[in-house]
Amino acid sequence: MPILVMKFGGTSVADLARIRAAAEKVRAEVARGHDVIVIVSAMAGRTNELVGWVNETSPMYDAREYDAVVSSGENVTAGLMALTLQEMDVPARSWQGWQVPIHTTSAHGAARIEGIDRAAIDAKFAEGFRVAVIAGFQGLSPEGRITTLGRGGSDTTAVAFAAAFDATRCDIYTDVDGIYTTDPRISAKARKLTRISFEEMLELASLGAKVLQTRSVELAMRYKVRLRVLSSFEDTDETSGTLVCDEDEIMESKVVSGVAHSRDEAKLTLVTVEDRPGIAAAIFGPLAEAGVNVDMIVQNISEQAQGEGAPREVTDMTFSCPTDQVGRARKALEAAQARGDIRFDALEVDTEVSKVSVVGIGMRSHAGVAARMFTALAAEGVNIKVIATSEIKISVLIDRRYMELAVQALHDAFELDKAD
Amino acid sequence: MPILVMKFGGTSVADLARIRAAAEKVRAEVARGHDVIVIVSAMAGRTNELVGWVNETSPMYDAREYDAVVSSGENVTAGLMALTLQEMDVPARSWQGWQVPIHTTSAHGAARIEGIDRAAIDAKFAEGFRVAVIAGFQGLSPEGRITTLGRGGSDTTAVAFAAAFDATRCDIYTDVDGIYTTDPRISAKARKLTRISFEEMLELASLGAKVLQTRSVELAMRYKVRLRVLSSFEDTDETSGTLVCDEDEIMESKVVSGVAHSRDEAKLTLVTVEDRPGIAAAIFGPLAEAGVNVDMIVQNISEQAQGEGAPREVTDMTFSCPTDQVGRARKALEAAQARGDIRFDALEVDTEVSKVSVVGIGMRSHAGVAARMFTALAAEGVNIKVIATSEIKISVLIDRRYMELAVQALHDAFELDKAD
Repeated sequence: MPILVMKFGGTSVADLARIRAAAEKVRAEVARGHDVIVIVSAMAGRTNELVGWVNETSPMYDAREYDAVVSSGENVTAGLMALTLQEMDVPARSWQGWQVPIHTTSAHGAARIEGIDRAAIDAKFAEGFRVAVIAGFQGLSPEGRITTLGRGGSDTTAVAFAAAFDATRCDIYTDVDGIYTTDPRISAKARKLTRISFEEMLELASLGAKVLQTRSVELAMRYKVRLRVLSSFEDTDETSGTLVCDEDEIMESKVVSGVAHSRDEAKLTLVTVEDRPGIAAAIFGPLAEAGVNVDMIVQNISEQAQGEGAPREVTDMTFSCPTDQVGRARKALEAAQARGDIRFDALEVDTEVSKVSVVGIGMRSHAGVAARMFTALAAEGVNIKVIATSEIKISVLIDRRYMELAVQALHDAFELDKAD
Repeated sequence: MPILVMKFGGTSVADLARIRAAAEKVRAEVARGHDVIVIVSAMAGRTNELVGWVNETSPMYDAREYDAVVSSGENVTAGLMALTLQEMDVPARSWQGWQVPIHTTSAHGAARIEGIDRAAIDAKFAEGFRVAVIAGFQGLSPEGRITTLGRGGSDTTAVAFAAAFDATRCDIYTDVDGIYTTDPRISAKARKLTRISFEEMLELASLGAKVLQTRSVELAMRYKVRLRVLSSFEDTDETSGTLVCDEDEIMESKVVSGVAHSRDEAKLTLVTVEDRPGIAAAIFGPLAEAGVNVDMIVQNISEQAQGEGAPREVTDMTFSCPTDQVGRARKALEAAQARGDIRFDALEVDTEVSKVSVVGIGMRSHAGVAARMFTALAAEGVNIKVIATSEIKISVLIDRRYMELAVQALHDAFELDKAD
């Protein structure tokens, strides 16, 4: 029988009533002729409670024990989901990560799935069971310990099962009904996309559209697992939600698919930094070690430094990071200067910027997207502070007070409110 | 190194502060030179919450899924206990039942331990770990599913580990500081026992002194595991609590060690029941099938029935059971009469009785205990309704309103307030 993977996140299994609603959706797919693998998260709030206990017990906790404690939330949901399905006369059985087993690396708290044993679950399907309920977010290390995959890891569990079982599709049920052209809270014209490519979804996920975990999209792209994002809070059918798929499945695509934003960005500029081979490594090495997530980087052209001493090449180096990492970044850079690893005249910090990006695979074959973007922003009087581009994305840093205006202007400029 | 088993029940690990207090006791034993195996229950209230969810989801639940859900409470405590010990610089590691593994039967919800693999834990002790924290109450079935041992099963887990690892002792930490000569809420003269034999403890456990699960005492007796019951809420040392041990370890024992009581008993009498071979089976078979826990049974001598028809032998048959099982008992007996399996003139029910018992291994070698007991009760005007005896116990059913008075009178009569 064709196998479908269905994943329900924490708000979709928040209590027994929500678990029943989710189980109804599973039953409907069984009735349509699927064998179903259901991946469940912990009931909303449970994982936070467990993590809180671990942190209170041991601030520098042993990750092996963290994983043993925190994984219990998903185990509870898995058993309750199986019981709920049985009550609906759907033959179901639950599995914890070690039971399948889901083999992972030993990187406790951030393990990677290395393989999934199909045998035991295949045998149950052959016996007449119609649903295997899997506790998400967890696995088994080579040492026989429980591992967890990191926050949002249940999405990754779902995609890994879809790949291992050659599932027809992997449906991610969540509290939104799909992927939008932009954040509907910012633009009333935001429109739900019917389809989006893996590449675009990856750019959107890393740009702050927090619907899918980036790793799960990467995995889906690698194994060509068709992902569907849809709401567990609404009636749904075969056409609901947004399909994340290979671009071959997307007939005629717009040049730009979506406008993303990231509100709390900071722009840091090292003024008159000595320019020599290895200077970028000398700057960004310490930042990485300090856990600063550097995003955009811009280096101006070099010039001769004015002033005393031997002539030297200098430049300004600008980069962005989340505002809450500015303190760490400043400390790391000042320490590097104190050690004599880098030299700069000043560190200018602007914590009042936001990032706005347009994303679309159509950019590959269409010129003029950047020009159209900059024109639209200029027409609204929005000054661009930093620009960064990739093959399918253009991002700009702007003053935070213009963020909503910029998103709306770009949404209009690329006519994203009109159907594909 | 000598191995000590320490078990902490639900109230002893009710929150993070209680877990720390328990961990302090473990650390003290490590400092005394023990390698320690710690058995933990779920945090107080957690198991009830999980059981409630299962019952609400599926009143006739699949016991395999019940076990998968309910066992998660102990897993959380085990991880938190290991983290707490690590914070105290005690090398500790947690183990869930399937990890050890603890092999059990497949009787989900009431599984029996069949064996414990020492290898993995021995290896950790050899590596320098000083404490193995084990999630109590659970195990692994031959089919690779999680099993639970039934309520109070963590005591059984503790004794099984003590037997498997030849532990010097198995300390059961709970919310009382030992085994008393009688219930201190009934008699202010109740005195804590320093030692008590397995046999006496078994009689007391089944008579309503709810400190230790009966199965765990049976297991301790079979494998000669020295059990100690003591409080996790007080400072304790090597002499605290009550030692439950082989009678060889008890030098000079009193004739009677304790007075037990069971408040909510009912007395049922089948009046003028036909007396023939097999009649007891015809009565008590259906009661057992209906889940009635029949305790005491008394059959009067037979006599010729008066009245019409062929002469027949008749008798009165009296038995006791918990009051909340009277409805079930009545239904089962009336159904048996309706089927013609038994014949009786009336079923008399007295739900206002209690059971009071004296227990002591000294009875084996001392005559006159029954006479002394009955004299003491008669002196207080307490009428005895039913008597039952075993080798080390005499129980009587009496009117419930006399229960406290009877307990106090017997405690005085056997001088239980005086030190052993």
